Amino acid sequence: MLRKLSLLMMLVVMAGMSAFAQSNQRTLTLEEVKVMAKAAEDRARQDNWNVVIAIVDGGGHLLFLQRMDGAQIASIEVAQKKAKAAIFYKRPTKVFEDGLKAGNQGLMLLPDVIASEGGVPIIHDGQVIGAIGVSGVTSAQDGIIATAGVDVLQ
Amino acid sequence: MLRKLSLLMMLVVMAGMSAFAQSNQRTLTLEEVKVMAKAAEDRARQDNWNVVIAIVDGGGHLLFLQRMDGAQIASIEVAQKKAKAAIFYKRPTKVFEDGLKAGNQGLMLLPDVIASEGGVPIIHDGQVIGAIGVSGVTSAQDGIIATAGVDVLQ
Amino acid sequence: MLRKLSLLMMLVVMAGMSAFAQSNQRTLTLEEVKVMAKAAEDRARQDNWNVVIAIVDGGGHLLFLQRMDGAQIASIEVAQKKAKAAIFYKRPTKVFEDGLKAGNQGLMLLPDVIASEGGVPIIHDGQVIGAIGVSGVTSAQDGIIATAGVDVLQ
Amino acid sequence: MLRKLSLLMMLVVMAGMSAFAQSNQRTLTLEEVKVMAKAAEDRARQDNWNVVIAIVDGGGHLLFLQRMDGAQIASIEVAQKKAKAAIFYKRPTKVFEDGLKAGNQGLMLLPDVIASEGGVPIIHDGQVIGAIGVSGVTSAQDGIIATAGVDVLQ
Repeated sequence: MLRKLSLLMMLVVMAGMSAFAQSNQRTLTLEEVKVMAKAAEDRARQDNWNVVIAIVDGGGHLLFLQRMDGAQIASIEVAQKKAKAAIFYKRPTKVFEDGLKAGNQGLMLLPDVIASEGGVPIIHDGQVIGAIGVSGVTSAQDGIIATAGVDVLQ
Repeated sequence: MLRKLSLLMMLVVMAGMSAFAQSNQRTLTLEEVKVMAKAAEDRARQDNWNVVIAIVDGGGHLLFLQRMDGAQIASIEVAQKKAKAAIFYKRPTKVFEDGLKAGNQGLMLLPDVIASEGGVPIIHDGQVIGAIGVSGVTSAQDGIIATAGVDVLQ
Repeated sequence: MLRKLSLLMMLVVMAGMSAFAQSNQRTLTLEEVKVMAKAAEDRARQDNWNVVIAIVDGGGHLLFLQRMDGAQIASIEVAQKKAKAAIFYKRPTKVFEDGLKAGNQGLMLLPDVIASEGGVPIIHDGQVIGAIGVSGVTSAQDGIIATAGVDVLQ
Repeated sequence: MLRKLSLLMMLVVMAGMSAFAQSNQRTLTLEEVKVMAKAAEDRARQDNWNVVIAIVDGGGHLLFLQRMDGAQIASIEVAQKKAKAAIFYKRPTKVFEDGLKAGNQGLMLLPDVIASEGGVPIIHDGQVIGAIGVSGVTSAQDGIIATAGVDVLQ
């Protein structure tokens, strides 16, 4: 047994690899982020919706944000909160909006929850690698814009 | 009177004891904590549930936390909140989940309450000496994992 | 005197104007913001500096933010703090860096101060209408990038 | 030109790849995290140092924490802050301790800075993929323990 193990270790060392099973995650580049932001902005302009568009990485940290002319100040933070909730809970914020409407008030006690549509995770090969959050018009419209941004990459 | 008191004091000193009634609380050792965490992790792995497991002491302060691969980021804070609520209120967080479902909205105004199962106090000789909080799957499943952790010590 | 005033009032009313002296402030459009961000990004790329670029409006509220690949997470908040300090105090953050180096520790007790170069106000006709904050390389380099962004508009 | 582009696109689609240059980052597994924590704990026990050991992912989010018997309560948060600072600024927290001692007071105005040794980034192929934070003894000793944890993986 010990002999087999040391043989394995030797092979591992020979191959210049760690003995651990490795895990990798794709990370978004600024180039990709800009393409997503443009797709979201284009969709918003189509209906003259003035919104804030925020994109975060897999850890919920801001990669990009832009505020369209006339968008309300509150949307700066709301858009970021939507993106963060989508990544922290690995699901669209619409789930929380629907849950609260269905009477699940316990959601209001959970950290980093926001109960309005418009936060959408960016999924790649089954991994959540970022999220888009949009705020400024109705939550359903915010959701349409965020989805347009996510879809362009996939 | 004074004479009797000094006699009493003398006896106390002779016996090496304080004149005050003593109070002790068993505290968890890291060794015990690891045994509980392992029992909880084993139960989670049995069903491929990826969760965060947190264990706090009698003051609600973190003793141990581990995040299993793939568990959502939000569960890091939720697991800690569940453990803290279980120790601050000396009861399982399932009580709050049930209470809110039964319409007791006043719970939402209480500090440090979280209304989902998965926070379970660790009780020893009738004393609450710590708590386990689990988050990552459904609240009922989180509760099963936390209970598996608590039960191994008792 | 009264007669002259009422004549003036009549003229004002006739002209459809308020009797109050008017005050206007030019506000940045997203189009202008993008031009500034691009100028800053181009300057950063010239030296392979990976930074966060933030642009805020006259109230210190975020209009735009982008993180270049590889920029450290802390720079997301630092860039915003620099831009906010530049608008809140109507001066470049280099002033605070220099002041602290000169021994003025009282600066550390002022709200929203950050003592490193890289926050630069955007001035138009003598009015501060926004600010750019850059973080990621040395504070002097951050300042060069922010200035490149501001200069393109003026 | 268009023809060449569509040929490229076709090849990309055939290869099942995105048209974007991909960027990947290795992520730590719980198995690796436990090996690092054990190495840090073993080093601490060698000198009977009772500390808190925290390990965070590339976004600064907690993967693991354990408090050794007798470690002070404050170290729970300090260890996490050290790990977070090491990942947010991509450098060991010793840099901040040294900088402050050298008179760089501006550091005290930066977000998420902690000026004591014991926060060490985990670097893999030039990428910062996590960090270890240790608190409980002197900052130099905290640093020795954190380094022992980091070294075992590399």
